[in-house]
Amino acid sequence: MLTLYYTAHTCSLATHIVLEEVGADYSTVRIDFAREQQKSPEFLKVNPKARVPALVTDRGILTETPAMLVYLAQSFPASRLALMDDPFAFAQVQAFNSYLCSHLHVAHAHRMRGHRWVDADDKHSIAAMQRKVPDSVGGAFEMIEREMLKGPWVMGEHFTICDPYLFTLAQWLEKDGVDPGRIPRVVDHRRRMSERPEVKKAIAEELA
Amino acid sequence: MLTLYYTAHTCSLATHIVLEEVGADYSTVRIDFAREQQKSPEFLKVNPKARVPALVTDRGILTETPAMLVYLAQSFPASRLALMDDPFAFAQVQAFNSYLCSHLHVAHAHRMRGHRWVDADDKHSIAAMQRKVPDSVGGAFEMIEREMLKGPWVMGEHFTICDPYLFTLAQWLEKDGVDPGRIPRVVDHRRRMSERPEVKKAIAEELA
Repeated sequence: MLTLYYTAHTCSLATHIVLEEVGADYSTVRIDFAREQQKSPEFLKVNPKARVPALVTDRGILTETPAMLVYLAQSFPASRLALMDDPFAFAQVQAFNSYLCSHLHVAHAHRMRGHRWVDADDKHSIAAMQRKVPDSVGGAFEMIEREMLKGPWVMGEHFTICDPYLFTLAQWLEKDGVDPGRIPRVVDHRRRMSERPEVKKAIAEELA
Repeated sequence: MLTLYYTAHTCSLATHIVLEEVGADYSTVRIDFAREQQKSPEFLKVNPKARVPALVTDRGILTETPAMLVYLAQSFPASRLALMDDPFAFAQVQAFNSYLCSHLHVAHAHRMRGHRWVDADDKHSIAAMQRKVPDSVGGAFEMIEREMLKGPWVMGEHFTICDPYLFTLAQWLEKDGVDPGRIPRVVDHRRRMSERPEVKKAIAEELA
């Protein structure tokens, strides 16, 4: 039995979708950022980093989306969601997800979490970071559009853990000020992802 | 045969050390940031993201440190450097390396690469980011010290790909303004790593 701690509109959606895709037996716990539940003593015992997602397993608690996605793929090997039996293909999966967590998601975070990198009361710098987001996030999506997204899925014919992760971060591109017309293949991928029953189910649960 | 594109004083050292640790047959190509070689047409064919490291393999080119480290561990399975035969242990390895790439390295990058997230000519915001680095990088190292570094190695008794990666990022903590006295276990780990012949060899080659 697995338990996912999640918050709607965050990257925890990627793990939620993969839990559906592999057919895992799981439950969810919602963490309310508006009430700062991620900083509560109870949640800090789950994840001292005060972030979602976190995944409770029989062996212990896991954090960090790229790790959780591979864990689910490896735990449900019939899914072949990470192409782990081929070291080079698996490395490409990992490189893509690493780009998402360390580059695209980080660029996005400068819109609402600028206080991580400048003093929270420095309004000039907070606003300067926000103004840059359309360019930095847009540039990352254009790199994905041009160099990484093979089509129809991220890794080509094989649906992998890269697809729910890209879909999740692509939820935010309009609010980040990125013109969808710059990245038609990413937007088409997002549309096709949104039609999958597993994706619909995960989103419906998070927004219920 | 593997070829590593690297630049001294960057995170490419982690992959360089692991190439030594697994006993790979490899060569290196130095990319000179001072001459902006990472933006040259030749290098953009290797890595369109204009970053090091990149690893040329018989199958194609890999980028992103967490992906390259796992690729080497999986390609040299006798090393057991990623504990991949145990999905939970492997997920812990991945979670640690994901924290390094998406959190610690990103915090560090705000000291010299602030132009990624604000306009390059906004001196106020660039300086504001630099002032925050001791706090943001220091906080990440304290999280590692307190919650992640099991000892003697990151994952406990097993030396893994987490160790060269942590060692590499710990090279920079004094220049980032972090007081080493706050993180004695991280500093002790760095000292023990620096005594390994494989680490000495990789560093000597990069600085030659």
